[in-house]
Amino acid sequence: MRALVLDGQNISLDERHPEASPPPGEALIRPRRMGVCATDLELCQGYMNMTGTLGHEFVGEVMAVGRAKDKAWIGKRVVGSINCVCGQCDMCQRGLSEHCRDRTVLGILNRDGCFADLFTLPVQNLLEVPDSVDDDHAVFVEPLAAAYQVLRQLTVEGRPFVTVLGDGRLGLLCAQVLTELNATVRLVGKHPEKLELCEKWGVKNRLLNDVGLRGDQDIVVDCTGRADGLTTAMQMVRPKGTIVLKTTVSGNHPIGPVDLSPLVINEIQVIGSRCGPFPEALDALAAQKVDVLSLISRRMKLTDGVAALQTAKQPGVLKVLLEP
Amino acid sequence: MRALVLDGQNISLDERHPEASPPPGEALIRPRRMGVCATDLELCQGYMNMTGTLGHEFVGEVMAVGRAKDKAWIGKRVVGSINCVCGQCDMCQRGLSEHCRDRTVLGILNRDGCFADLFTLPVQNLLEVPDSVDDDHAVFVEPLAAAYQVLRQLTVEGRPFVTVLGDGRLGLLCAQVLTELNATVRLVGKHPEKLELCEKWGVKNRLLNDVGLRGDQDIVVDCTGRADGLTTAMQMVRPKGTIVLKTTVSGNHPIGPVDLSPLVINEIQVIGSRCGPFPEALDALAAQKVDVLSLISRRMKLTDGVAALQTAKQPGVLKVLLEP
Repeated sequence: MRALVLDGQNISLDERHPEASPPPGEALIRPRRMGVCATDLELCQGYMNMTGTLGHEFVGEVMAVGRAKDKAWIGKRVVGSINCVCGQCDMCQRGLSEHCRDRTVLGILNRDGCFADLFTLPVQNLLEVPDSVDDDHAVFVEPLAAAYQVLRQLTVEGRPFVTVLGDGRLGLLCAQVLTELNATVRLVGKHPEKLELCEKWGVKNRLLNDVGLRGDQDIVVDCTGRADGLTTAMQMVRPKGTIVLKTTVSGNHPIGPVDLSPLVINEIQVIGSRCGPFPEALDALAAQKVDVLSLISRRMKLTDGVAALQTAKQPGVLKVLLEP
Repeated sequence: MRALVLDGQNISLDERHPEASPPPGEALIRPRRMGVCATDLELCQGYMNMTGTLGHEFVGEVMAVGRAKDKAWIGKRVVGSINCVCGQCDMCQRGLSEHCRDRTVLGILNRDGCFADLFTLPVQNLLEVPDSVDDDHAVFVEPLAAAYQVLRQLTVEGRPFVTVLGDGRLGLLCAQVLTELNATVRLVGKHPEKLELCEKWGVKNRLLNDVGLRGDQDIVVDCTGRADGLTTAMQMVRPKGTIVLKTTVSGNHPIGPVDLSPLVINEIQVIGSRCGPFPEALDALAAQKVDVLSLISRRMKLTDGVAALQTAKQPGVLKVLLEP
């Protein structure tokens, strides 16, 4: 089978043998759609020192299972959460299994990803996709879940002013999801053509250059994917306000030191936010609460995976989907 | 009158004329004891670009007031909160006056401090010191209030493991205060002679080199005063745990870039923490809940203020008090 493999700094489409049958408890999945994520691009730049097959956004079909009792999954169309957990460490025991000490993470940490003809994932990670959600929607469950995680982590009083900072893929999803809050939500970005999507959705939006950094926002969600996003967020948020930090920036590509003293002086709360609840995201897609189709910039074949990663880096490009 | 003045990078004992009478709403105060704080040392290194008289920790006597209706304050022994606020901006209006947009801060921001024979502070900032709290205790109200602020900001469930990181003045105060929590509290530092104080108080304590950075603490309070404190705190705290950040580090003295990706990956919450509630601190001193006398390393005269700031920087030195 073909797999898009990161070997240190080089990415290539390799020919690999799939395992004859998946290990016990796991499913062999043939992806139908795959999504390129900013994290994939960071991994290519050295983030997590990852090697192996890339990819963690997918919708696919279960081809085989490792245990007879999981047979009912065969033929099902599924999405799957990316953290594969031990169930036994202190984190798993206290209900924080997404932070399992011994986890592997699909296409990110010690587990080959989904940019391949076939890949495996534990059956317990799978969620069946209802017929009402087609492949083009279902492939967005993983990033949309990451947006719902912000909603889950925030507690909102009054009717706060919320700024989503960054008009990339994740920012555009977060902005849509956060309109579920009893809040005044705006997206602030640098790209007029991306902000136009907000107009279509009825979401307030502004260009960064047109916005005063006045420390008047109750909540700022940093989806910039840039190391200086936090600095801008600290200038935007009010004293005692909250910054939700979605940006992971590769340790191999640090920018100058960030002055964190505003956090202390203004008693700002920063909440790190990572993966989120798949069921909520799938429900939102089934209910057509979120527009994801407008985010699809390009469709490419797995065979063109190396080019697809390059394409995803281009300015103005939102989601690049891969097809088998 | 004499005043310890920071003029750009130079500190000197200057002769200055006090104002003949304090402005309306303010009191003229003669300090009886003054405390040297880590913030004073940072200011000397360029933090906040401060110029003027240093000093914000004091207990003193009210000598005069600017308004007849405040006459009752004359002769009172007082401490005073350091943020002087406008009462009218959006922060003041919403009950966050410690974050007043137009505030001045005693000895820190646009207001001469207390390292002088006389200084002024708004009457509304003052708190009378009861006879049961002597000068040596009362001078600790400001830093002790900063420790109580941590208690106020934390919400605690179960019986969490709490590490106070840093065995300086603030760390030693925080460790004592946090024992009020239903929690297992330990102080982690680098100086055996400071950790001995914890032994005396019955507070658990460990040397940093003897502690595994295992990501198992529910709460870490960074009182290191060092830019790398946050990095250590991120290694100590468990996923979904909380870091309280007390350290402000001068933007003029940055160290290498901090990799903040653990905040996101481990969904850590960081809470900036600054000044705190004076009444709680004064009550704690009156109730003898906190030992501050053991923190006094040296007593020096205001005349020797320049030397006192040097002394406060020496390893092993805790609180340096100034007397008139």
